[in-house]
Amino acid sequence: MILFYTDDIKDGIATLPPEEARHCLQALRKQAGDTIHFVDGKGGFYEGEILEASRKKCTLNIKNEQQNYQAPGFHLHIAIAPTKNISRLEWMLEKATEFGISEVTPLLCQRSERKNIRTDRLQKIMLTAMKQSLKAYLPQLNELTSFKDFIRKNISADATNFIAHCHENEVLPHLKNAYTKGMNTTILIGPEGDFSKEEVTLALQNAYQPISLGTSRLRTETAGLAACHIVNLVNW
Amino acid sequence: MILFYTDDIKDGIATLPPEEARHCLQALRKQAGDTIHFVDGKGGFYEGEILEASRKKCTLNIKNEQQNYQAPGFHLHIAIAPTKNISRLEWMLEKATEFGISEVTPLLCQRSERKNIRTDRLQKIMLTAMKQSLKAYLPQLNELTSFKDFIRKNISADATNFIAHCHENEVLPHLKNAYTKGMNTTILIGPEGDFSKEEVTLALQNAYQPISLGTSRLRTETAGLAACHIVNLVNW
Repeated sequence: MILFYTDDIKDGIATLPPEEARHCLQALRKQAGDTIHFVDGKGGFYEGEILEASRKKCTLNIKNEQQNYQAPGFHLHIAIAPTKNISRLEWMLEKATEFGISEVTPLLCQRSERKNIRTDRLQKIMLTAMKQSLKAYLPQLNELTSFKDFIRKNISADATNFIAHCHENEVLPHLKNAYTKGMNTTILIGPEGDFSKEEVTLALQNAYQPISLGTSRLRTETAGLAACHIVNLVNW
Repeated sequence: MILFYTDDIKDGIATLPPEEARHCLQALRKQAGDTIHFVDGKGGFYEGEILEASRKKCTLNIKNEQQNYQAPGFHLHIAIAPTKNISRLEWMLEKATEFGISEVTPLLCQRSERKNIRTDRLQKIMLTAMKQSLKAYLPQLNELTSFKDFIRKNISADATNFIAHCHENEVLPHLKNAYTKGMNTTILIGPEGDFSKEEVTLALQNAYQPISLGTSRLRTETAGLAACHIVNLVNW
């Protein structure tokens, strides 16, 4: 099944954005009268009949819709320091979208080597992955946020939050045991050089629980993906 | 910690391969008398003192060694159809090595779009990932093998084998429930267009158990990585 995306839906009529319209009409040669499937990124899964099929415009008459399509029973927020080589973060976001993730915040940490990102490019990767994996929810991608600001703002009474770090003087519980099914959670993943001592201390002071992701030394992006996969597995 | 690799070890003396020697002596400016750590890819983890440090040669006097370093208690073999875009398989092999994997066979399936691979290049990626994640076992990478040949040859009395497919008429058990801690296993992962009906039938006739990796539609390389991560998690 090929899935399209639009958030432009009014009174039973949906309009595809230009790039989606081009893919639908020019690449796949769909025509007026044909039926396609699309999602709105907010949990809506639709079946629509093509009404108008002009050069760059494609409008659809909604014939069937399902809201809260495969809604996850938990909110998973991963806050991760962007990798020096941005393609590593990009694939992590693609794979995390495939597994299932609700929200991502790129974190600016003391030891971050990369201090800027292009959220529009990252958002596009997640949008493609959402469609490819037949999901109806587009993960929320936040702007790059400093570690301190993030810890200060991300306080939620109905979530249990974790920090994955590699400071070696402690044996930490594994995320698969620390996390409980259905729990809303934010998980912090540090940069290549790990979180600083000050950052770990600040997180612990703000009720983040330290966790391990196993005995292997994992790259930043692998750690982020492992955390995402574990939460999805516990919820499966 | 920076880890080097060599399998050239005789009578307490190790010799680094040229590329490793260059990295050690030229990039990192190590000198005779310095101590470095290295692995042999077969479970040996060593500490050695540099004896000879010439232009492209680096020999080491072994001071400490540990065999069966972090030996996994199970054999995990993933047989996976190479992806059309080879970089997707490459990162899967990198990440699988980080999580822990014993053996990989690239599979040539009926619906495979890619019919050739460069095993030397893939092997190099796994070698780098082994060192980066501080492991002492280099996963065995086999040559591209046709699905039928693989099924015929890969018969082992002490393993439970699985096939992950997406044929939609069945509800399959999840790998995390079907796999038991400590079990040796081979897991088959199909190409972009999935295994053919004939391939699934042949696998089932040869005692492969069908499993699911969750409700998400995963790309080939994501499915391979998910399977690898699940087996490692169950064993953790």
